[in-house]
Amino acid sequence: MQTQGRPRARDLGIPFDGTPAALNAITDVPGIEVGMTTLISGDGPLKVGAGPVRTGVTAILPRGRTSKDQVFAGWFSLNGNGEMTGTTWIEEAGFLEGPILITNTHSVGVVRDASIKWSVEHGRTSQAWSLPVVAETSDGFLNDINGFHVKPEHVFAALDGARSGRVAEGNVGGGTGMRCYGFKCGTGTASRKIDARFGGYIVGVLVQANHGTRDLLRVAGVPVGQELPEPAAGRAADASRARDALGEAGSIIIVVATDAPLLPHQLKRIARRAALGLARTGSVSSNGSGDIFIAFSTANAGAASVPATAQVSMMSNTRIGAVFEATVQATEEAIVNALVAAETMTGVDGHRTEAISHDALRQALRKYNRLK
Amino acid sequence: MQTQGRPRARDLGIPFDGTPAALNAITDVPGIEVGMTTLISGDGPLKVGAGPVRTGVTAILPRGRTSKDQVFAGWFSLNGNGEMTGTTWIEEAGFLEGPILITNTHSVGVVRDASIKWSVEHGRTSQAWSLPVVAETSDGFLNDINGFHVKPEHVFAALDGARSGRVAEGNVGGGTGMRCYGFKCGTGTASRKIDARFGGYIVGVLVQANHGTRDLLRVAGVPVGQELPEPAAGRAADASRARDALGEAGSIIIVVATDAPLLPHQLKRIARRAALGLARTGSVSSNGSGDIFIAFSTANAGAASVPATAQVSMMSNTRIGAVFEATVQATEEAIVNALVAAETMTGVDGHRTEAISHDALRQALRKYNRLK
Amino acid sequence: MQTQGRPRARDLGIPFDGTPAALNAITDVPGIEVGMTTLISGDGPLKVGAGPVRTGVTAILPRGRTSKDQVFAGWFSLNGNGEMTGTTWIEEAGFLEGPILITNTHSVGVVRDASIKWSVEHGRTSQAWSLPVVAETSDGFLNDINGFHVKPEHVFAALDGARSGRVAEGNVGGGTGMRCYGFKCGTGTASRKIDARFGGYIVGVLVQANHGTRDLLRVAGVPVGQELPEPAAGRAADASRARDALGEAGSIIIVVATDAPLLPHQLKRIARRAALGLARTGSVSSNGSGDIFIAFSTANAGAASVPATAQVSMMSNTRIGAVFEATVQATEEAIVNALVAAETMTGVDGHRTEAISHDALRQALRKYNRLK
Amino acid sequence: MQTQGRPRARDLGIPFDGTPAALNAITDVPGIEVGMTTLISGDGPLKVGAGPVRTGVTAILPRGRTSKDQVFAGWFSLNGNGEMTGTTWIEEAGFLEGPILITNTHSVGVVRDASIKWSVEHGRTSQAWSLPVVAETSDGFLNDINGFHVKPEHVFAALDGARSGRVAEGNVGGGTGMRCYGFKCGTGTASRKIDARFGGYIVGVLVQANHGTRDLLRVAGVPVGQELPEPAAGRAADASRARDALGEAGSIIIVVATDAPLLPHQLKRIARRAALGLARTGSVSSNGSGDIFIAFSTANAGAASVPATAQVSMMSNTRIGAVFEATVQATEEAIVNALVAAETMTGVDGHRTEAISHDALRQALRKYNRLK
Repeated sequence: MQTQGRPRARDLGIPFDGTPAALNAITDVPGIEVGMTTLISGDGPLKVGAGPVRTGVTAILPRGRTSKDQVFAGWFSLNGNGEMTGTTWIEEAGFLEGPILITNTHSVGVVRDASIKWSVEHGRTSQAWSLPVVAETSDGFLNDINGFHVKPEHVFAALDGARSGRVAEGNVGGGTGMRCYGFKCGTGTASRKIDARFGGYIVGVLVQANHGTRDLLRVAGVPVGQELPEPAAGRAADASRARDALGEAGSIIIVVATDAPLLPHQLKRIARRAALGLARTGSVSSNGSGDIFIAFSTANAGAASVPATAQVSMMSNTRIGAVFEATVQATEEAIVNALVAAETMTGVDGHRTEAISHDALRQALRKYNRLK
Repeated sequence: MQTQGRPRARDLGIPFDGTPAALNAITDVPGIEVGMTTLISGDGPLKVGAGPVRTGVTAILPRGRTSKDQVFAGWFSLNGNGEMTGTTWIEEAGFLEGPILITNTHSVGVVRDASIKWSVEHGRTSQAWSLPVVAETSDGFLNDINGFHVKPEHVFAALDGARSGRVAEGNVGGGTGMRCYGFKCGTGTASRKIDARFGGYIVGVLVQANHGTRDLLRVAGVPVGQELPEPAAGRAADASRARDALGEAGSIIIVVATDAPLLPHQLKRIARRAALGLARTGSVSSNGSGDIFIAFSTANAGAASVPATAQVSMMSNTRIGAVFEATVQATEEAIVNALVAAETMTGVDGHRTEAISHDALRQALRKYNRLK
Repeated sequence: MQTQGRPRARDLGIPFDGTPAALNAITDVPGIEVGMTTLISGDGPLKVGAGPVRTGVTAILPRGRTSKDQVFAGWFSLNGNGEMTGTTWIEEAGFLEGPILITNTHSVGVVRDASIKWSVEHGRTSQAWSLPVVAETSDGFLNDINGFHVKPEHVFAALDGARSGRVAEGNVGGGTGMRCYGFKCGTGTASRKIDARFGGYIVGVLVQANHGTRDLLRVAGVPVGQELPEPAAGRAADASRARDALGEAGSIIIVVATDAPLLPHQLKRIARRAALGLARTGSVSSNGSGDIFIAFSTANAGAASVPATAQVSMMSNTRIGAVFEATVQATEEAIVNALVAAETMTGVDGHRTEAISHDALRQALRKYNRLK
Repeated sequence: MQTQGRPRARDLGIPFDGTPAALNAITDVPGIEVGMTTLISGDGPLKVGAGPVRTGVTAILPRGRTSKDQVFAGWFSLNGNGEMTGTTWIEEAGFLEGPILITNTHSVGVVRDASIKWSVEHGRTSQAWSLPVVAETSDGFLNDINGFHVKPEHVFAALDGARSGRVAEGNVGGGTGMRCYGFKCGTGTASRKIDARFGGYIVGVLVQANHGTRDLLRVAGVPVGQELPEPAAGRAADASRARDALGEAGSIIIVVATDAPLLPHQLKRIARRAALGLARTGSVSSNGSGDIFIAFSTANAGAASVPATAQVSMMSNTRIGAVFEATVQATEEAIVNALVAAETMTGVDGHRTEAISHDALRQALRKYNRLK
């Protein structure tokens, strides 16, 4: 669990471009609610089905729990070694019908069916068919992933508990057991407020980060991964490295939200920019990585339910660059926030993943004159 | 259930182009095994969770139950109002790692997680993560779809029961409760043997057909749907029509298999041709339809497991047209086979979907001089 | 050239589904103008650069010559053995900025640069850069394609001569030297008027058809190609068959226009339906074929030039099936119109391509009780 | 023109990851030949058709001038405000048939048709149709782009002059009049040698860089653009800024070559990684930018011409991360090389674009302790 008052990346003096909105979180976009279920139990040797358990569920409700309204959306797969269900319909229709859920790789199914059940019971969806969006990253290094510990009630809890306001980061929700760039990682978020000349819109990003090897890590342009090399022993002990002969495991799911009035084909452009924010932290999007991104806009309320012809707002392409830049910036910061918020965790078979040391991180940035 | 000895489309004298292989089934492609679980129970009013149940699971194992080897694959969405999990990784890697499973829309999740469990327990997959392919069509008109009646054991049974040889058609497996062009429909299959000049390869197709309104149906070019109009009463009673203001509900999943040595980018071309076979039966691929197709090749055994550089065979693009034509032909026939094999079914709340009358069908073809 | 008063497909009694608008042409969509330059000169042996010449240029101006306004657009490649420039920007921006031009394969470049020159001189485009849409099919069997006979003035003439009203068909414009299904072919058009319940919109289609082998041809579901087999001698003489070991050469460009208020992602759906109309005429979209389709909407005038946020209309996805069906129907008829309108032509080295006999075509349809 | 002996980026002490091959150029990949035509003439006020001229053509021949053999290829559009012809066929077939040519936006057509003529005359292509790859960026700020100064002979010269060995950088070839990040820019190249554990393959990159605003520029992680702000006067004088309300104009074409045995679907993955290298230099891929990338492999010689079934080599996906990382690194360095090699240029109407000062660049890196 994230400790209250734990510093975020910019509290450490790490410089980022652009201006965050009030919470520096995806919930700065009005209407968005986020809920999480965090499952941590057991210690010691792996007993499949018994634990240890280090996993969870994150739910993002674009218009909150009480609205049945859909949002325009688009998606992009930078490296498709992962799952995001529901994307075929988003590509076709341009609409995201319900929540976005993120969990571990082997719990996508239970989360999907449970979210249908929740939607049907809350009268949010057609009785006849529903195509939920559920994404994942793999926590098998720390979690008993083949024990299938996520149950329908955990999904309902994440959905029912969704709230606006501050978003927990680090070892929480779907990000509980995740690691990135060789450090403990997980859930991170950030936001940007676009200049009033370009509409003053908000862009919010939430990541579930579980990608990359340590040598690649760059923070604010500084080669932090090379400054803080992984102990040789740590490398050997890391079974998840077997995913990829090059030693880079993992995945990252990136969710971009905005209130800018963007159409579906424009939101695909936004989703693609998440790749550029990810690149700023050093990733080369390795073969073993499911780097899948989704973007949605909370503008154009009601567009999905107009029976004949809806009147919708479309931001001019000539201004969209402001959203591009905000997306790149907020993605970069959300990843660093996940890294900074996470705390050292020990999981199955005593596997241990260290959090990045805030002091060591600051020292690396200071060496390159990049500490604010 | 399909009655033994029930005639198939060409037994009725319906003419099709091209030459089928021995079984006129997807299992004509050597190595392919198909298994199905059919769930039919209860009658009368819908009680969510109790039934009536009219659903199932179909499993296609490209190299059979005993092989852990992968196959090259490609996919295409003609109209994405549906789900096929695992496609993002197929697009990226070019490999299909395990079985293809087809079920009802609201059971995709349980089938997905259960197939991971089955794969892990059979040592077929990495312990760390798995991205199964599960597709669906919606049987909510006849089946208690929100009762979630498909359980893990039904998935295991379909997988463990997979066999080569004859493939059941009609109201079986995932196709149990499906309807197409206003008639009872479901599972269908067909195959083609390509001319020896172009390699003598086999193309096999299996469909789970649940699409289209009656007026659109064409069989062998004959406007059968216009010859056999739906009774006005039937139209009104059909709740699933509410899916689409134009009255066209449903979806079709098409699986194309071949032993022709095709690379992933070539298999995407094959998947796209399924659309042309579908069009021959009259579909315009309506908004409410999840028309999603996958193609794989059983050639190039072992290509996925070579650690450095694999030597693989690639059919010349100059010959691939033979596979295109076989795909179009076998898809057309598989759909008509599904229609011909299905039998009238009554499901939830007494909803009844009539099978097409073989006599009426023959009469329509005779009127247009198209009966063999 | 098309003879005045020459019958069109439905004049011959060929049955088609749906209701055409006034002209049964793409120009039924208000505002659309079409212009063509037809180049026919010389006879006898091929002398590269001298002739014989059998080619041309077709220009489609979505809002006519006098408007500088853009239209929403989307595209789809069913089989990409062809060129349509400008599509990368359409995919990105959702806008088609200028005319659509169609010519022979080796003249795409000159047509592209000339259309920029024309646009700059008419103040229709930015001075700084322009990305025109130019598509092609290959007329090398009848035309001195490597003589590069299309010149900038021919492009200007097609653009300056664009008009609303009746559209010439057959051996005209870019379609001058084209052949399809083994017969002389070229330019064809058709339209549909959608039922008032779904908005009463118009869908217009224009094709430049140069695809398919004779055995595949189906008209109104009747296997006309098998009824009118190609003389053995004709097959041998046809050098263009070398394009494809399976004997299927050629390409088809399909342009779909509508006044239905569709957004870019919806127009991609429309472009994809052109494939289903093509399939109804028998094509399997062979390897040698550039089957590339573009769809645009003349609704939402001015959307491209609003500097901040445009208000645009979007047809509900629940009604879009009406546009799908109209597109399939009009595409099918436009292809048959091209075939019916074309006249026998002799070109380079005495190559001769016969027009389909109207009498033989009617006889084939009568045999299958499909003549109205 | 590039001055002989002018330092390249790493000569200035700029640190890059990875190990370049011998020339640190795309021509390190065996067999590749590069040719350029540079057109510089005239000064003073723009007279359309007369000049001043600041443009050119770059030709990349994957297997050199004397081979007619094709290569496997894949492409990716990060932001499609640009043109790359021929990509629809590459996507379909997986093969790049001829050279890649890069020029200015308004000369794509002449270069395309001239390259067909060259290919036909050299017996390199079918007589019947050819689909060349021609890409562009816009030099309208310095060059009389609407004067259409590139002529067929300039294309032939670039093709005939193609050679292996050292590649000129900066104001040469298609890159002659280009600018990036507010500085004079143009052509750049770099390469990487992959570790022998992963096959020891070469990855070479060539860019034509014309993108980005100055504030975004990052070199080796250092915010150089913020350290070297653009003079206010310069911003006002820059007409090309009108392309984009956000002030970011331009485009970048990136060509990635390798001798690693990659299949077409794998080469699409490589093309996508160019985006990550671009992101390291600070780009957010603005709306006005045509950021289009192509990757090809010189392995698998002869695969395109086997009539039935070719035997081809495929690098395992588990090793492909080495190529990903090399692509990201070489792309980053090629862009910085273009920037470092370019020299201040004055063009139409006295428009002047300053080269980056090597001293100022080194000073900025030194400030952040990033100078080697």
